[in-house]
Amino acid sequence: MPLGIIGPLFVNGDYAKGEFYVPMATTEGALVASYDRGSRLISEAGGARAICLSDSICRVPGFILDSLLEAAKFVAWLNANFEALKDVASTTTRCGRLQEMHATIDGNRVYVHFEFTTKDAAGQNMVTFATEAVCEHVIRRAPFKIHRYFIEANMSGDKKPTQLSQQMGRGKTVSAEVVLPRRLVSRFLYTTPEHFVEYADMATFGSIHSGAIGTQGHFANALAAIFIACGQDVACVGEAATGTSRAQVTPEGDLYVTVTMPNLVIGTVGGGTHLPTQTECLRMMDCAGEGKARKFAEIITAAVLAGEISIVGAIAGGYFTKAHQLYGRKAGTKRKRTHVQDDRTSKEYQFI
Amino acid sequence: MPLGIIGPLFVNGDYAKGEFYVPMATTEGALVASYDRGSRLISEAGGARAICLSDSICRVPGFILDSLLEAAKFVAWLNANFEALKDVASTTTRCGRLQEMHATIDGNRVYVHFEFTTKDAAGQNMVTFATEAVCEHVIRRAPFKIHRYFIEANMSGDKKPTQLSQQMGRGKTVSAEVVLPRRLVSRFLYTTPEHFVEYADMATFGSIHSGAIGTQGHFANALAAIFIACGQDVACVGEAATGTSRAQVTPEGDLYVTVTMPNLVIGTVGGGTHLPTQTECLRMMDCAGEGKARKFAEIITAAVLAGEISIVGAIAGGYFTKAHQLYGRKAGTKRKRTHVQDDRTSKEYQFI
Amino acid sequence: MPLGIIGPLFVNGDYAKGEFYVPMATTEGALVASYDRGSRLISEAGGARAICLSDSICRVPGFILDSLLEAAKFVAWLNANFEALKDVASTTTRCGRLQEMHATIDGNRVYVHFEFTTKDAAGQNMVTFATEAVCEHVIRRAPFKIHRYFIEANMSGDKKPTQLSQQMGRGKTVSAEVVLPRRLVSRFLYTTPEHFVEYADMATFGSIHSGAIGTQGHFANALAAIFIACGQDVACVGEAATGTSRAQVTPEGDLYVTVTMPNLVIGTVGGGTHLPTQTECLRMMDCAGEGKARKFAEIITAAVLAGEISIVGAIAGGYFTKAHQLYGRKAGTKRKRTHVQDDRTSKEYQFI
Amino acid sequence: MPLGIIGPLFVNGDYAKGEFYVPMATTEGALVASYDRGSRLISEAGGARAICLSDSICRVPGFILDSLLEAAKFVAWLNANFEALKDVASTTTRCGRLQEMHATIDGNRVYVHFEFTTKDAAGQNMVTFATEAVCEHVIRRAPFKIHRYFIEANMSGDKKPTQLSQQMGRGKTVSAEVVLPRRLVSRFLYTTPEHFVEYADMATFGSIHSGAIGTQGHFANALAAIFIACGQDVACVGEAATGTSRAQVTPEGDLYVTVTMPNLVIGTVGGGTHLPTQTECLRMMDCAGEGKARKFAEIITAAVLAGEISIVGAIAGGYFTKAHQLYGRKAGTKRKRTHVQDDRTSKEYQFI
Repeated sequence: MPLGIIGPLFVNGDYAKGEFYVPMATTEGALVASYDRGSRLISEAGGARAICLSDSICRVPGFILDSLLEAAKFVAWLNANFEALKDVASTTTRCGRLQEMHATIDGNRVYVHFEFTTKDAAGQNMVTFATEAVCEHVIRRAPFKIHRYFIEANMSGDKKPTQLSQQMGRGKTVSAEVVLPRRLVSRFLYTTPEHFVEYADMATFGSIHSGAIGTQGHFANALAAIFIACGQDVACVGEAATGTSRAQVTPEGDLYVTVTMPNLVIGTVGGGTHLPTQTECLRMMDCAGEGKARKFAEIITAAVLAGEISIVGAIAGGYFTKAHQLYGRKAGTKRKRTHVQDDRTSKEYQFI
Repeated sequence: MPLGIIGPLFVNGDYAKGEFYVPMATTEGALVASYDRGSRLISEAGGARAICLSDSICRVPGFILDSLLEAAKFVAWLNANFEALKDVASTTTRCGRLQEMHATIDGNRVYVHFEFTTKDAAGQNMVTFATEAVCEHVIRRAPFKIHRYFIEANMSGDKKPTQLSQQMGRGKTVSAEVVLPRRLVSRFLYTTPEHFVEYADMATFGSIHSGAIGTQGHFANALAAIFIACGQDVACVGEAATGTSRAQVTPEGDLYVTVTMPNLVIGTVGGGTHLPTQTECLRMMDCAGEGKARKFAEIITAAVLAGEISIVGAIAGGYFTKAHQLYGRKAGTKRKRTHVQDDRTSKEYQFI
Repeated sequence: MPLGIIGPLFVNGDYAKGEFYVPMATTEGALVASYDRGSRLISEAGGARAICLSDSICRVPGFILDSLLEAAKFVAWLNANFEALKDVASTTTRCGRLQEMHATIDGNRVYVHFEFTTKDAAGQNMVTFATEAVCEHVIRRAPFKIHRYFIEANMSGDKKPTQLSQQMGRGKTVSAEVVLPRRLVSRFLYTTPEHFVEYADMATFGSIHSGAIGTQGHFANALAAIFIACGQDVACVGEAATGTSRAQVTPEGDLYVTVTMPNLVIGTVGGGTHLPTQTECLRMMDCAGEGKARKFAEIITAAVLAGEISIVGAIAGGYFTKAHQLYGRKAGTKRKRTHVQDDRTSKEYQFI
Repeated sequence: MPLGIIGPLFVNGDYAKGEFYVPMATTEGALVASYDRGSRLISEAGGARAICLSDSICRVPGFILDSLLEAAKFVAWLNANFEALKDVASTTTRCGRLQEMHATIDGNRVYVHFEFTTKDAAGQNMVTFATEAVCEHVIRRAPFKIHRYFIEANMSGDKKPTQLSQQMGRGKTVSAEVVLPRRLVSRFLYTTPEHFVEYADMATFGSIHSGAIGTQGHFANALAAIFIACGQDVACVGEAATGTSRAQVTPEGDLYVTVTMPNLVIGTVGGGTHLPTQTECLRMMDCAGEGKARKFAEIITAAVLAGEISIVGAIAGGYFTKAHQLYGRKAGTKRKRTHVQDDRTSKEYQFI
């Protein structure tokens, strides 16, 4: 798949600090051009602040008991034995740690959320193994007749968009923001902060009227392209394409834009991160290996912010269609890093 | 990215008829093994019925008028002039046809859904261009003061999961089903129809408790892997990972399983379908080029059904975790077609 | 239950024209004061425009067929025989008319939406009877093996909030709007259009973050109080407390506020409308009996708008809490029409 | 409004123990008959188990800070000062206790959930006053520039249905269950456990396809009728008409039915509970005054369960329509306690 590179994208995170070039694997040329434009605008404006607000991943096994009363007692027992469950979980993994547990009771059924930290791995398999061990321990020790249990009762949000993940987080929850001076909004986006916000508001209500989870423009584009390039689990696009994107005019007349991604499931070790091209892509951002997952999450979120700024600007400015006509898919597929940088002074950017 | 191939997958669709081998690009080995198992089970059971229930894609521009009254009159005017709008749309595209229009009024704002057919293209760009032409026509001709319009007011469901797409469809809406004889459930899935359904029901309520859109297990896995292999817009995983998956025990004691995918946005022309490997992958299923989109949609849906059967079976049967332990990611990446077929008699399938 | 009366509320609808006094049965005094304030503000500003955008109610029976293929053929048969189904429906009712039909297929199951107009009745029973007749006709005539059918397959949105009703409407869909001059915002609400909108935006995202259906403040308060007073089906508050509430500063610096209620199920005949007090309450607005349902819907929506304006103003202005402390429940319960009118010049309104 | 009484309803709760007669104020006669039938069936089967799983209510003020970084620091400060905030809250109320706090960050905005217990009051006003005090304390003490704060940022779920309340609870979260012997299902419901569950499953997917919050039949009917009778805040029907209703056939061939109401906001002191008729209605269940709220919640949930059983039975059994034809609204309005008891042996119950 063709690989484009956007940047420089200046990120001012807790972990990611400085200019980054972000690889995006996609067959859609207009997309790379659009994210690139947003990135350069952010950089020109001094960079995006990004903060990883929470970091955990869950498995939610389901237990079937005799009755509601047994279910309630079972949950009380789990709570009373939580420290022991943590110990059991830690025997299965070097990196994963069971941090929290909470239960949903539905009559004689119990869904138990086991929330883990998994260091720099996305961790879906790690938490499966740990949860299996915990469940086996529970089955042996809990003084209740447990008819059956299922390792995942479809409540974890794994590979699917849910309101629960939007609200409680899954993987990394990351927020990013930038203040774009009015003159840069004009120079890069060909619009004004007021028009930008007018459209952003209409788009927010478009989300509401369509029953979206959160409200955003096209998080999925950045996520799919970066996930493919960097050896992530691409199916997680199915759960991560939710969250919020928001804009306001500042008292000074500049443009404030922020995105919050509640469920960004990514890793810098494990999965496909060890494959050669994928490792190279991660290295381009100094995000390969241990100790890099939050940095990677911050960069992704800043790139997502860049994409929201660019698409909202293009639609607010009225040239979204024209930009897509110019950047046909075929042309775009050849876009590479040097290309993108040469483009900066070229005329085509006047449209996107 | 490593490419696995699953099959044979016997599909009895309106367009797809016979055995298919389906390419999946993924770094997760257990996934290919799991879909393969489901496919072979479906084939052994006589194949999956698949039907494309609807087929259209929309753009939803937004218009800002003076007032609610003007908005209501504007919508009446649009309805009265729909034939002219269809003509305008058809001037921009050889394949796209504007079929339906309906409006959502929110005070002085109007969201207009333009539903198009786009033949064998996914069609997002095609409908953008057509909608732009329609909007420009509307701006010139409608006897209303339209303050501003936006080519997409974030209500189309493009690249994002929404209840509206779940309910109204976006792209192809496809349903598939299969009846699995009890003895095959035992032989392939190591469980019974009753246990399968017991878990499926607990999983359905897991979806409900987590506020999912629809209820399903892991549509996203098949979609991401097939989309990458076949040159589709991978960001569309963000909108397609919704829908319903459902199981019941038949009066005869067999297992009925069905999936419905309301918003499968795919194409067999355009986008990344022309790239060499991607074309080859499409050709493997005789799905490259014109006249093949619905066939492709049916095969994808049957593959998704295979994946639901396999994962629900594994969790119901209690060996999901063990299967993931055996099929580590690294091992799985080498899985290729011959490999998969040789495996059929090997012991490792006893677990997944 | 204590009865308060708010007004005058000036409505400029297609059916409701002029000043109205609206009865609200509630034990919460602050509520009546708040809606009253909003009503008088709207009236001072020239009144609220209200338009009934659509008007229908559905039953959604479910049919179980042999297979997906049979299901698809069954839906085609229904479409081909729609005129006959309309005739059957019309034999059961003088007022109800079957207007539209659309189906949702989920494997071997079919949900059929029958949309009716019901004149001035809420119509839930009327459409049940008509749908039963239609279903019996279908069972006799459709050349398919229909294993079972259920008169309502829980997809109509009856008595429950759903995204489908938010998007497609159920009962009356009504929108109302008003432009409030800046000086009136200051005089009545003790805030500015800018602060009002700043809070309204934060509240919109509060809705989004909490996974609401639509976004609004407290539609349910007006609905419950008016429904009780006017003999409506109070359980319908459970489905009607969704919709959108939206504010913007106009280019002139005034405040534009609009609400849209997608599923307002009300009637001016049938149900509890014939009870003595309830009839009197309807008569107070000239809304008793035939030919009045849309008028009543417009007035309700304008009252709902009044409530949104008042509460958003109170929270934006920072005196919401104080207002509730002043208007305790006990005091409020004695509030009657004359009382409210006397209050207009009193000091207590400075807080709410 | 006419008052019907259902019962006896045998409840085996932690607080409610024994037979209860439950008052329902409604103009819909069929409704009282239906809930009555379900209650008597439950009682005949030995009663419904009910458990109050959680009990708290929140206010969610919103704070606007300078930046995302300030927002993150502010939340850390809140967490560090939580004990002091609890103390401040407790100065405003004798009954309310601040128990938990958690924050949602969206760029420079912070939504803070303050979860309170409120003893036997519904408590919305109590938590408003307490939260105001907490916020004023925060404004004075927090070393951050807080541009503005709003006492409620529309994320508490007050008076509106939300996924957040469905998942996290609001007010009382109560679950109830009953096992109905097969012969009683036949005698009271004229159907079998298998048919009951077949329809219940189709209804569950009807909820899913319509984008409901949770899945249930008509919680709102019981809630509206009991809330009116017992002086509750009827607008809370708008938030409480969500939750789950679920049925399964037991291994013994009997019928298990359970309901879970995640957000039941009720009180036995305050609000309209002191009004004469309302107090009398509460007293009929020994639920008036202090120490009775959880008991009342258990009884309500058991009544809701009765209603689900009755309506699902009527639709599964195919006589829902006929029952509504027999129990017209006018007839029903005269239904009173003695009436209901006399009815037990009468023929009309053969239909509902």
